[in-house]
Amino acid sequence: MRNVRLLLEYDGADFHGFQKQAGLTTIQGELETALAGILKHPVKVIGAGRTDAGVHALGQVINFATESRMPIERMPVALNSCLPAAIAAREAREVDPEFHARRSASSREYRYLVLNRPQRSALLARYVHHVPLPLDAAAMAEAAQALVGEHDFGSFQGGGSPARGTVRQVYRAECRRLGSLVAVTLEANAFLYQMVRIAIRSLLEVGTGRLPGDAIARLLRSGGRQRGPSPAPPQGLYLTRVRYEPRS
Amino acid sequence: MRNVRLLLEYDGADFHGFQKQAGLTTIQGELETALAGILKHPVKVIGAGRTDAGVHALGQVINFATESRMPIERMPVALNSCLPAAIAAREAREVDPEFHARRSASSREYRYLVLNRPQRSALLARYVHHVPLPLDAAAMAEAAQALVGEHDFGSFQGGGSPARGTVRQVYRAECRRLGSLVAVTLEANAFLYQMVRIAIRSLLEVGTGRLPGDAIARLLRSGGRQRGPSPAPPQGLYLTRVRYEPRS
Repeated sequence: MRNVRLLLEYDGADFHGFQKQAGLTTIQGELETALAGILKHPVKVIGAGRTDAGVHALGQVINFATESRMPIERMPVALNSCLPAAIAAREAREVDPEFHARRSASSREYRYLVLNRPQRSALLARYVHHVPLPLDAAAMAEAAQALVGEHDFGSFQGGGSPARGTVRQVYRAECRRLGSLVAVTLEANAFLYQMVRIAIRSLLEVGTGRLPGDAIARLLRSGGRQRGPSPAPPQGLYLTRVRYEPRS
Repeated sequence: MRNVRLLLEYDGADFHGFQKQAGLTTIQGELETALAGILKHPVKVIGAGRTDAGVHALGQVINFATESRMPIERMPVALNSCLPAAIAAREAREVDPEFHARRSASSREYRYLVLNRPQRSALLARYVHHVPLPLDAAAMAEAAQALVGEHDFGSFQGGGSPARGTVRQVYRAECRRLGSLVAVTLEANAFLYQMVRIAIRSLLEVGTGRLPGDAIARLLRSGGRQRGPSPAPPQGLYLTRVRYEPRS
C-alpha cells in the first residue's frame, strides 16, 4: 500500500465545496471518481482544508492510499485527463504511511482578493469580491495585526457545527493594495469554520470605516461572547498553501 | 429618440455567443431583457462584433435607441444591477443618430491567450487555450506578418454562412510571450466568420512546427481554394477593442 500526496488547483465556483456530499458535485467526489478510474480500486481522499462552495485553491494538498503500481510521476497526467477542467493535479509524490493531509499540516495560508473600484468586472466575477466603496488598505493592514498570535477565535466561527476548542494560532495577517485589487493573506495553524471569511468581512468593515480600527481586537477579547459579522462571500477566497514542516 | 453607445465587458464561457437565439442564453438576449427592464420599453441592441459561444469581451461596443429620459451616466449603474455577473456595462454616452455599432466601426481588435506549459491550469480553464507542446512565439510572430494587409481570406472562413466578399484588411498581427502565456493580437477592418480562430490555429501549428512558416502566406495566395485548419477553441479569445475613428 502506497501513500500518495498530491498538490491540487481548482476553480471552486461550480462546486459544492471540497467535502463529498450525496447528490452534489464536490471536489472530493470528482477526485475520488477520477482516481478510482485510473487506479482501478475505490479511493478515499483526505484534504488539508475543507474549502466551502465557491472557494478556490491554488495549493490544496490531498493524500490517498493506493495498491496501484502506476509510476508516481504519471499520476498527475493521468488524473488531469480524467478530471473536469476546473480541477487540476499539479504534482504527486509518495510519502510516509503516517502522512495525513489534514492532521500532519502545520499551517494553512489563505488569500482573499477584493476588486475595489466603483464598477464591477464581468471577467473577474467568479474570482474576486467586488467592493465599490473605497477601502483604506493601510487601516486594514493595521487592524489585521490584532489577529496575529494565539487567541480564542470563538467570535469568528460560522454557525452550524461549533468546534470544541476555538483557540487557534495565526502566524501572519497581511493586507496589500495592487492597483484596484486589495489582497488579504492569512496564515494559521488551523482555521475554524468560516473563520477566514468572517475575519475578512471584519477587515473590510474597518476598511470602509463602518467599524473602528480596534473592532477585531475587541471581538477577540470577548472570547466568543460577541458575534463577528457575517462571512465575506466565497468567490474572493483562495487556499494558497499548506505547510507540513514545523513553522519556526 | 436618443442613440446610446455602450462599452461592454463579458465572460462568454456560459453564453451561446453574442447573437440572440430563441431558447438560448445569449449576451444580446440578456442585454435586451435588462435594458427593457430599466428603460421601460422594448430595446433592440446592435453589437460591433458577433462573438461566438465561449468568446469573451473586454471592449465590445453596442448601441440602442431609447425614448427614456434616464440620465446617460446612470445607465451603466442601473444596467449592472440587472445584468448577470458575467456581463458588465463599462460606460455609456449619447451619440449621433447615424452611429451604428457594427457598420460605423473602422476596426476590431481581438486578443487570443494561450497557456503554454506542460500542465493545464484549473483557474484559467475558461480563459485560455492550453497548449502543452512548446510554442516558438518568434516563429509565430514572423508568420503572423503574412496576415497583414488586404487579402482574400476565403481560406480562413468557417463553415456555415459564407460571406459574399472575402477580402479583408488586417492592420496588425502580433505575437508575444509573457512567461507561460502566449498572446496573439489581430486587428482588422472586419473579420470573416471564425477568421480569427482559424488564423490563430494556423499560427499555433507554425509555433509547434507542424506547419512550415510560410503556410499562412500559401493559404492566402490560394484565395480560398485551400481550406485553413479548424478554428482554435473559443475560450482563449477576447474582443478587446473596437475603433470608430478612421485608422491612419
